Amino acid sequence: MTTTSDQSPATLPDRDRTSAPRDEDVRLDVEAVSELLLGRWPEWRRQARERAGDPQFHKDESLTPAEHRERVLAQMRVMVEGGNKLSWLAFPERMGGLDQPGANLACFSELVAADPSLQIKSGVQWGLFSAAILHLGTPEQQDRLLPDAMDLTVPGAFAMTETGHGSDVAAIGTTATYDPETQEFVIDTPFRGAWKDYLGNAALHATAATVFAQLITNGVNHGVHCFYVPIRDPKTQEFLPGVGGEDDGLKGGLRGIDNGRLHFSGVRVPREDLLARYGSVAPDGTYSSPIESPGRRFFTMLGSLVQGRVSLDGSAVNAAKIGLAIAVKYAAERRQFAGAGAEETVLLDYATHRRRLFPAIAEAYAGHFANERLLDLFDDVFSGEHDTPERREDLETTAAALKSTSTRFALDTLQECREACGGAGFLTENRITSLHADLDVYATFEGDNTVLQQLVARRLVADYGREVKGATKTPAGMARFVVERATGAALDRTGLRRVSQAIADVGDPRRAAGHLRDPETQRELLADRVATMVEDVAMALRPAQKAEPAKAARIVDENQVALVEAAKAHADLLRWEAFTTALTEIKDPGTRRIMTWVRDVFGLTVIERNMAWYLLNGRLSDQRARTVTAYVDRLLRRLRPHAVDLVDGFGYGQEHLRAKISSGAEAERQSEARAYYAAQRASGAAPVSEKALRKSSR
Amino acid sequence: MTTTSDQSPATLPDRDRTSAPRDEDVRLDVEAVSELLLGRWPEWRRQARERAGDPQFHKDESLTPAEHRERVLAQMRVMVEGGNKLSWLAFPERMGGLDQPGANLACFSELVAADPSLQIKSGVQWGLFSAAILHLGTPEQQDRLLPDAMDLTVPGAFAMTETGHGSDVAAIGTTATYDPETQEFVIDTPFRGAWKDYLGNAALHATAATVFAQLITNGVNHGVHCFYVPIRDPKTQEFLPGVGGEDDGLKGGLRGIDNGRLHFSGVRVPREDLLARYGSVAPDGTYSSPIESPGRRFFTMLGSLVQGRVSLDGSAVNAAKIGLAIAVKYAAERRQFAGAGAEETVLLDYATHRRRLFPAIAEAYAGHFANERLLDLFDDVFSGEHDTPERREDLETTAAALKSTSTRFALDTLQECREACGGAGFLTENRITSLHADLDVYATFEGDNTVLQQLVARRLVADYGREVKGATKTPAGMARFVVERATGAALDRTGLRRVSQAIADVGDPRRAAGHLRDPETQRELLADRVATMVEDVAMALRPAQKAEPAKAARIVDENQVALVEAAKAHADLLRWEAFTTALTEIKDPGTRRIMTWVRDVFGLTVIERNMAWYLLNGRLSDQRARTVTAYVDRLLRRLRPHAVDLVDGFGYGQEHLRAKISSGAEAERQSEARAYYAAQRASGAAPVSEKALRKSSR
Repeated sequence: MTTTSDQSPATLPDRDRTSAPRDEDVRLDVEAVSELLLGRWPEWRRQARERAGDPQFHKDESLTPAEHRERVLAQMRVMVEGGNKLSWLAFPERMGGLDQPGANLACFSELVAADPSLQIKSGVQWGLFSAAILHLGTPEQQDRLLPDAMDLTVPGAFAMTETGHGSDVAAIGTTATYDPETQEFVIDTPFRGAWKDYLGNAALHATAATVFAQLITNGVNHGVHCFYVPIRDPKTQEFLPGVGGEDDGLKGGLRGIDNGRLHFSGVRVPREDLLARYGSVAPDGTYSSPIESPGRRFFTMLGSLVQGRVSLDGSAVNAAKIGLAIAVKYAAERRQFAGAGAEETVLLDYATHRRRLFPAIAEAYAGHFANERLLDLFDDVFSGEHDTPERREDLETTAAALKSTSTRFALDTLQECREACGGAGFLTENRITSLHADLDVYATFEGDNTVLQQLVARRLVADYGREVKGATKTPAGMARFVVERATGAALDRTGLRRVSQAIADVGDPRRAAGHLRDPETQRELLADRVATMVEDVAMALRPAQKAEPAKAARIVDENQVALVEAAKAHADLLRWEAFTTALTEIKDPGTRRIMTWVRDVFGLTVIERNMAWYLLNGRLSDQRARTVTAYVDRLLRRLRPHAVDLVDGFGYGQEHLRAKISSGAEAERQSEARAYYAAQRASGAAPVSEKALRKSSR
Repeated sequence: MTTTSDQSPATLPDRDRTSAPRDEDVRLDVEAVSELLLGRWPEWRRQARERAGDPQFHKDESLTPAEHRERVLAQMRVMVEGGNKLSWLAFPERMGGLDQPGANLACFSELVAADPSLQIKSGVQWGLFSAAILHLGTPEQQDRLLPDAMDLTVPGAFAMTETGHGSDVAAIGTTATYDPETQEFVIDTPFRGAWKDYLGNAALHATAATVFAQLITNGVNHGVHCFYVPIRDPKTQEFLPGVGGEDDGLKGGLRGIDNGRLHFSGVRVPREDLLARYGSVAPDGTYSSPIESPGRRFFTMLGSLVQGRVSLDGSAVNAAKIGLAIAVKYAAERRQFAGAGAEETVLLDYATHRRRLFPAIAEAYAGHFANERLLDLFDDVFSGEHDTPERREDLETTAAALKSTSTRFALDTLQECREACGGAGFLTENRITSLHADLDVYATFEGDNTVLQQLVARRLVADYGREVKGATKTPAGMARFVVERATGAALDRTGLRRVSQAIADVGDPRRAAGHLRDPETQRELLADRVATMVEDVAMALRPAQKAEPAKAARIVDENQVALVEAAKAHADLLRWEAFTTALTEIKDPGTRRIMTWVRDVFGLTVIERNMAWYLLNGRLSDQRARTVTAYVDRLLRRLRPHAVDLVDGFGYGQEHLRAKISSGAEAERQSEARAYYAAQRASGAAPVSEKALRKSSR
């Protein structure tokens, strides 16, 4: 709970006001920015980006869905040909991998530029099916099952979701009942709602699946566990006895993936094929697990599969970058309506167009840097270097916060880019509609965004609860806590903070702008919002703990929207912090200054979007609030000359963008038109316009 | 510039507090609401909706784009078989039409439920190509050219947009140069940017086109005119000499339409085929027009084609209704995560889910009623009953305001519905992704939304200018105007209005809620916002009138975003007014009460979205502002039992929704699962959960 500070512009730490070049003279060092974005594993990422630019991996829009599915499988075979390790970075060295979990996800997230279907089908094979064996299996099981999964000898499905249960995995209906007679598990689908559904690879190619089912032995259900289950004869691709399924049919996108449904009737798998890292069954049916609590065991198993969310976060940001690069390059050439001069106005010179695209550029950078921090955290945990329960929890919360934010951001941005390119944006040859259609389901799979946001918020509230408990353990602590809250609340209710800002700013809009530019102000505004929202929700939820169930449910319901909002605010802060940290790595002062403007655009547009909150909670005076939009608009104008550099900084070439409108065709067409009109004028044969004629005859 | 009123709840005009049933007891009369939504031409609309429910007109998702294109053409032939007049409502009685322009658009907007490709290709044939002949041609030309266009003997393209010029039609490059020797126009495409582009029917089926070109005669360019140009040999479908073109290829949606490009090299058409209602050329090349000003002439020609915008507005709202009906029906059955009871919670019982869907239901109703008013206005003008220049201008402004709002609303809503249905929403069999893909370009064609919003705002500013001029003609008027502005501004700046509300509300949140529920409050808040924004922009733009061009451009640029915001606010007000008017037509008190809550949700969520503005402009006190969200949430809970009724009220049956998840399949699956678990429990063979076991052994 901090109030906003009043640092004057002269003391801003990120700006040397004496020797620095003028704002108009700075240029973005595109290469340095691209380099920075390559992150912690630049060589691997570069290699992955080269692969994504290779035509043999590109989406071919002319194919039928059936052809597209076969092409993607064939592409995956090429990807691991000759033991190419780029798809195996995360696997153990002893199986030909490189034990590089973080680099692996960085590379995976670049694959979206080739074809999202290729990316997600690869994700199913190596990030879900194989990863389940890796993370849920014992070393013996890894040795036995992984090699064939890794080299695609066994294409696999990841059979977790059911028609009846997607988000609530704990409630799935599939059962695996242990039969001590034969030392086998019997897998069964008891009703239609328990069919496995939406599984990539399941409609056609998978010959095995990692199947999640309720493990039942000796009459006890030990909860959801994962089983390795062969499902098709690899020679005929026919289902094995007891296995059935169907094709999910056409989807809104990702049509290169054969999603399908599976069901099981008395399918027997050997006792050894329960992936047994977190739970195993002895020959006599006795269940044992290294984790006593069934709840914690379940979440540990699911948590080991967090990489999906981490990698979708990065992929979504990359897809948004591609859309933005296409839209900005087109808008930098495209002209429409005569402006002040004789020439028509370039789209980027329209304030509305800058408003559509530039804040998204800023958000893409913020999202990128946040994903880099997330990759760090992921690598720390999964390389084993800092694998603590607290870090795992941090990782899961951060992944949920960022994945839900960036997939939403990508869809909104691609849609905005599509529309900003007009009719041209609707043509498949210009890529954006295709990316939008494919990315659409990123908002749902690997955790529905709304469910993830509630998970994030609940963790934040729990953390807050622990903090309060700590702070209020002593009577003195309790008293301090009560007083601090009361003071804060009083300040808000009376608008006193706002009034004091207003007095500070009287007659000086520059002071208000300087205040907004100060990174400490931005940080405080963003951090304070998260803290206050979490605290407010935590307080509002308190009575639910002791209420009877219906009342408690009502209290939770009344605060659910606020929970989601708090999670979003948290993601905003994470991204802002990551961006701000990244600024310190930029050496060139001009580049750093431009990127600081970009960061400011991110921070201030977040604040602008939530302005009502800042006003109602007394965090901004009316005067300062009014300054925000004007200052953002000023920043957007200032960024205008750097727009193309900024999207070039993303590091994608035309081999990644592959839109006709990002190829310079528009500029060519315009020069041709200009040349035609110039020649006509020169020839003296140009017709006079009736309008001009009427004017001159007046 | 009015302040908000403080009517107490007891005096609310729309609520009889003595004899009315309790809120919990009211039910929606679904049939009455559907009937109300049939609007002014219920019989025609009913017929059109039946047609849209007929399987022969439905989109077949299994077709290739090539097959889809042929199917749509074949469907269109069926639509006019035997002289069926449903597609000809707008045409003159003397040609077999019914002279019913308004009813025609109502029917057209229902076609979106069958297949948006069928709708838009029909729109190209009858709403653009034929309508150009109807509205831009002379009676002789209508008699000569319309019959073949109407009955599809001549499939036609509407060749206005060029690759280089979409929004700025006046600047197109195609020329039609009169040759007095042969009494022909010579149509030419001087450069690549002047190719006609994105034209429905042009890639395959059109044998003629209405081509827009700069009319040049005797060395003078008289601006854009429309020409009837045969382009293909109807026997071979080969291009005629001098005509060329290409296929636009795949698009993000509407793949049942053969969009393409056309170009012309010395193509000669007889003098008589200049569509000559607004301009003609005598044999000797002398140009004449009933409209002297070339600018007004151009806008009159374009204005006569306003029906595209009117009909897309209605269609977009209808598409949103379909998405909402699917998502709400599914969410009313789908359960996920165990709630307070033993059963899992229905999605609609989650506050987040209600927030996702219910405000959109309210907006769909608002959009529908606004489109009805727009249809009235359109019919008034185009039936000739009230065809005045002022009405035409009103019609054009309203159409631009609503089309840009409803197409945005439809896309956002379909996306939200898609995500609210989770993985199921991504399957093509559940319709929503398909609708989103097809509707996508509705935001661009018939006027890019951003361009339309600027058109709206500029008209509002011009109206304001006229008003001011009127009011300030006398010195007394001028003085009053200045004082009123100064007072208003002072009130805002000091937040005095806000303070007075705060004093009025102290300690009484019910009074604040009563205030919000009052329709006069809502109207004032919405209307005041439009008026203030327009006034603010108008004032800010004033200096541009006398500034030198670069400076003027800068001023306009600085206010462009505000212009667009003002246009959006205007559309919000129009929709709210239309909804409020419609409420008076509801007889059943319970239905009226529920629909009033729905209207309140619309009005208050609009206010909530713009809360920062209301706070910064002193229109709402902090206390009242805080009440808004809580009160909206209360309304959404209150609407929960009526959710399915409300989407049923849209009047669409499963033959229109055609999603598997809107068929009741989910509820069936759940009963099957419940029966399975119940039988298991009854048999005594149900496994005990480890969790329960641990608890009981503690």
